[in-house]
Amino acid sequence: MEFSAQQIASLIQGTVVGDASVKVCNFSKIEEGKPGTLSFLANPKYEQYIYETNSSIVLVNNDFAPSAPIQATLIKVENAYASLAVLLKLVDQSKARKTGIAASASIESSAKIGLDTYIGNFAYIGANASIGDNCQIYPYAYIGDDVVIGNNVTIYPHVTIYQECIIGDRCIIHAGVVIGADGFGFAPEGDAYSKIPQLGHVILEDDVEIGANTCIDRAVMGATIIRKGVKLDNLVQIAHNVEVGENTVMASQAGISGSTKIGRNCMFGGQVGIAGHLNIGDRVTMGGQTGVLGNIKENEIIMGSPSMPMKPYMRSVAVFGKLPDVYRTIGKLEKEIEQLKKELIK
Amino acid sequence: MEFSAQQIASLIQGTVVGDASVKVCNFSKIEEGKPGTLSFLANPKYEQYIYETNSSIVLVNNDFAPSAPIQATLIKVENAYASLAVLLKLVDQSKARKTGIAASASIESSAKIGLDTYIGNFAYIGANASIGDNCQIYPYAYIGDDVVIGNNVTIYPHVTIYQECIIGDRCIIHAGVVIGADGFGFAPEGDAYSKIPQLGHVILEDDVEIGANTCIDRAVMGATIIRKGVKLDNLVQIAHNVEVGENTVMASQAGISGSTKIGRNCMFGGQVGIAGHLNIGDRVTMGGQTGVLGNIKENEIIMGSPSMPMKPYMRSVAVFGKLPDVYRTIGKLEKEIEQLKKELIK
Amino acid sequence: MEFSAQQIASLIQGTVVGDASVKVCNFSKIEEGKPGTLSFLANPKYEQYIYETNSSIVLVNNDFAPSAPIQATLIKVENAYASLAVLLKLVDQSKARKTGIAASASIESSAKIGLDTYIGNFAYIGANASIGDNCQIYPYAYIGDDVVIGNNVTIYPHVTIYQECIIGDRCIIHAGVVIGADGFGFAPEGDAYSKIPQLGHVILEDDVEIGANTCIDRAVMGATIIRKGVKLDNLVQIAHNVEVGENTVMASQAGISGSTKIGRNCMFGGQVGIAGHLNIGDRVTMGGQTGVLGNIKENEIIMGSPSMPMKPYMRSVAVFGKLPDVYRTIGKLEKEIEQLKKELIK
Repeated sequence: MEFSAQQIASLIQGTVVGDASVKVCNFSKIEEGKPGTLSFLANPKYEQYIYETNSSIVLVNNDFAPSAPIQATLIKVENAYASLAVLLKLVDQSKARKTGIAASASIESSAKIGLDTYIGNFAYIGANASIGDNCQIYPYAYIGDDVVIGNNVTIYPHVTIYQECIIGDRCIIHAGVVIGADGFGFAPEGDAYSKIPQLGHVILEDDVEIGANTCIDRAVMGATIIRKGVKLDNLVQIAHNVEVGENTVMASQAGISGSTKIGRNCMFGGQVGIAGHLNIGDRVTMGGQTGVLGNIKENEIIMGSPSMPMKPYMRSVAVFGKLPDVYRTIGKLEKEIEQLKKELIK
Repeated sequence: MEFSAQQIASLIQGTVVGDASVKVCNFSKIEEGKPGTLSFLANPKYEQYIYETNSSIVLVNNDFAPSAPIQATLIKVENAYASLAVLLKLVDQSKARKTGIAASASIESSAKIGLDTYIGNFAYIGANASIGDNCQIYPYAYIGDDVVIGNNVTIYPHVTIYQECIIGDRCIIHAGVVIGADGFGFAPEGDAYSKIPQLGHVILEDDVEIGANTCIDRAVMGATIIRKGVKLDNLVQIAHNVEVGENTVMASQAGISGSTKIGRNCMFGGQVGIAGHLNIGDRVTMGGQTGVLGNIKENEIIMGSPSMPMKPYMRSVAVFGKLPDVYRTIGKLEKEIEQLKKELIK
Repeated sequence: MEFSAQQIASLIQGTVVGDASVKVCNFSKIEEGKPGTLSFLANPKYEQYIYETNSSIVLVNNDFAPSAPIQATLIKVENAYASLAVLLKLVDQSKARKTGIAASASIESSAKIGLDTYIGNFAYIGANASIGDNCQIYPYAYIGDDVVIGNNVTIYPHVTIYQECIIGDRCIIHAGVVIGADGFGFAPEGDAYSKIPQLGHVILEDDVEIGANTCIDRAVMGATIIRKGVKLDNLVQIAHNVEVGENTVMASQAGISGSTKIGRNCMFGGQVGIAGHLNIGDRVTMGGQTGVLGNIKENEIIMGSPSMPMKPYMRSVAVFGKLPDVYRTIGKLEKEIEQLKKELIK
């Protein structure tokens, strides 16, 4: 399918600058642009490429002011990245969805499957499990006994959902995710450890997306809760009894220890680690590899391990690089003061 | 099922303080306590909740001395957390176990399956593999050729055990775990690398629990060994030829490089990283995100990356936060000394 | 099968020192050497063991000069580790390969399977997928629609390859790997986030090996590219639109953020984290847990978080351990200068 710049602009309430009749049939990154494709420019780091790209159309923000001639047709919009998302979604939605229930799937007789839900080859749906309408359950999905899954949920291959967990509407769970494995709870018994059975479960509210091979443990009692709109990247660890607030996003390999409560609209970089039994406020931002050992108030921006507010952290880091100089200088000052003392005595 | 405070106290050798006839049918966290449920108080951080909880019964340690009136019935025990574990285990053991061998499982004819062992849908048991009695082998478990599994072992969905690995009695292996994949071994060959075949295997001794999506690589020759009673959390990495000593526990996302030998009864926080070919002594404790570049003696408590003993580390961290001040002060002292020198010359 | 020292030496162009007729039938680590086995010594840290090993044969480098008598027969070669690899490969290649297409595998009718390719139980091959010759596709491999896989590729159990990804010749993909899951892309929409569909794919060039449970996300548009000869360890994260250059190796739990471009022949330690949209030059070496926030030039050796060149980093680390002393010294100097000032005024 081909679309003209004019047609695309009308889909996203944009303004065409240049040849409105030029047509595209695919997307490309601006630095790899080819004729017949549409690119976008949102991050100013990439501005240099717009003057040399071979893309036929480039989406830009309304406030973009070129500093040199541009060959491509521009479509100016309020937010180029958001408009790109709209176009990508239109293409995505035009793709065929999987349908039907594979003969090789194994569905316990007490399970309930909603309307227009696809169940792939070798999927397993446990006793008394309930799956809503319009879901996409891929091959090798393991849906444990008594699991409840909402409508319009996508579960990719090799996902394991242990018994009794609850998944809200429109959740997307990527391949290899494990939801509801036992929390890491043991009581010392002499030199050894005795397992604390983990009898709680996991609740994912609506619109949650979970990246590949991420793990969310079941609560020892009660629930580990992932609130509405949370997005977790790949290989993230959420321990038992954690609560993650609405719309919080975590990059890959972040790890949250048991019983910690995280506010809403937080943004965590990759490989962040947070100790257990803490409170993290709303709208907290953490840089990659931040290590958190205490409670954090709302709106803080923190970095480092152990964590500090970002600005003083970066100032301390700058001095860290000069520590050998600092050390030498102090040695020199000590000697000079000794010398001064001697001279004063004279 | 309901139990009275009196009945529960007798199960765990506890003393009832308050109404011994009050009944509960479930557990709850003390801060979310509901009537008809039992909670516990072990971590003093949560003491405030005992004065306002709606739980009907709270397990507390014998030495707990309330600072205000408490509405709930208390059951006093030596160790509230351990007693909770006993109760959770009783409930857990009362649950129905999976039984039978699913028709859709694929079991090679040379494999041996013990008595009362459950084999779930789509499980695969390789040639000459041997599985003991009373095991629970969940759907999609992949048990490679010549694997030996003991008695009373639980293997959750999507576990992969490569050929020739050995799993002891009473091990619990959570979903997505990979045991026996090739170690990361390559020999340089010009600019490229030539694979070193990994011909060893992995041994898990008895009573080991492995968290979801954790990876334990096979040895290049000989065995990667996880000793009796070790507990590994989710997403942990154990490289080839590592040995982990008895009863050592590692929190999520810890990573141990090749050929490192770890002592017994160690406790590692999350995201710890240990370099290869090292010796870590018995009873070593590491804080989260510790990075270890050298051998560590027994009984050490270490933190930081690169690691240091905890107390001096925390003192250095405290000064790290003041480094901009330190830097300014040194600049000031330099000037003052220059000034003093000039005045002395006069 | 048994081989004599003489036979082995001729296979690897080595020189026998000692009894050339002694025979071995297996490998062992030098520190656990048993009669009838062959060990190797490459890392000087292990030299002590060669004087006490019970191994019958030890491979050593030509330049190895013993400092005491050795009981074992030595085979001297240019590079003991590389020669070990040759021998391990010979043993490995003598093992039986899996053959045939399991009846329980599910292969869409439009998929193409090459010659002498094994397809294991419960494997799934999607519509229009193409798999080359001599591949080993283990049970539960999920090969999505339109995926293209080259020749001599090994795919272990529970691997998920999403639609349209491309896998080169001789790639080895370990259990639980996820290739082509959606990149982590969202556009803010009020307080919530709107998903950016990820319409690109993943390309693995030839001779790539991917460790267990590692994740490589598909590009938002275009491709996430893993170049020829790259080796990734377990639990590594490669975000969308990343490019990893030829022969680069990454240890376990490393994480690369979106759109970062990494050069060739780099070596990254475990748990390295690299921010997004960066350029890392060729032959860059990073220590474990390095955190990279900016571009890195070729040939750099870096450590720390945030990263610094290794040598100054280690010098700063050395002073970090002395910071409490530094702090005390500065306090002392301040007082002494005050005292000197007073005395000068007198």
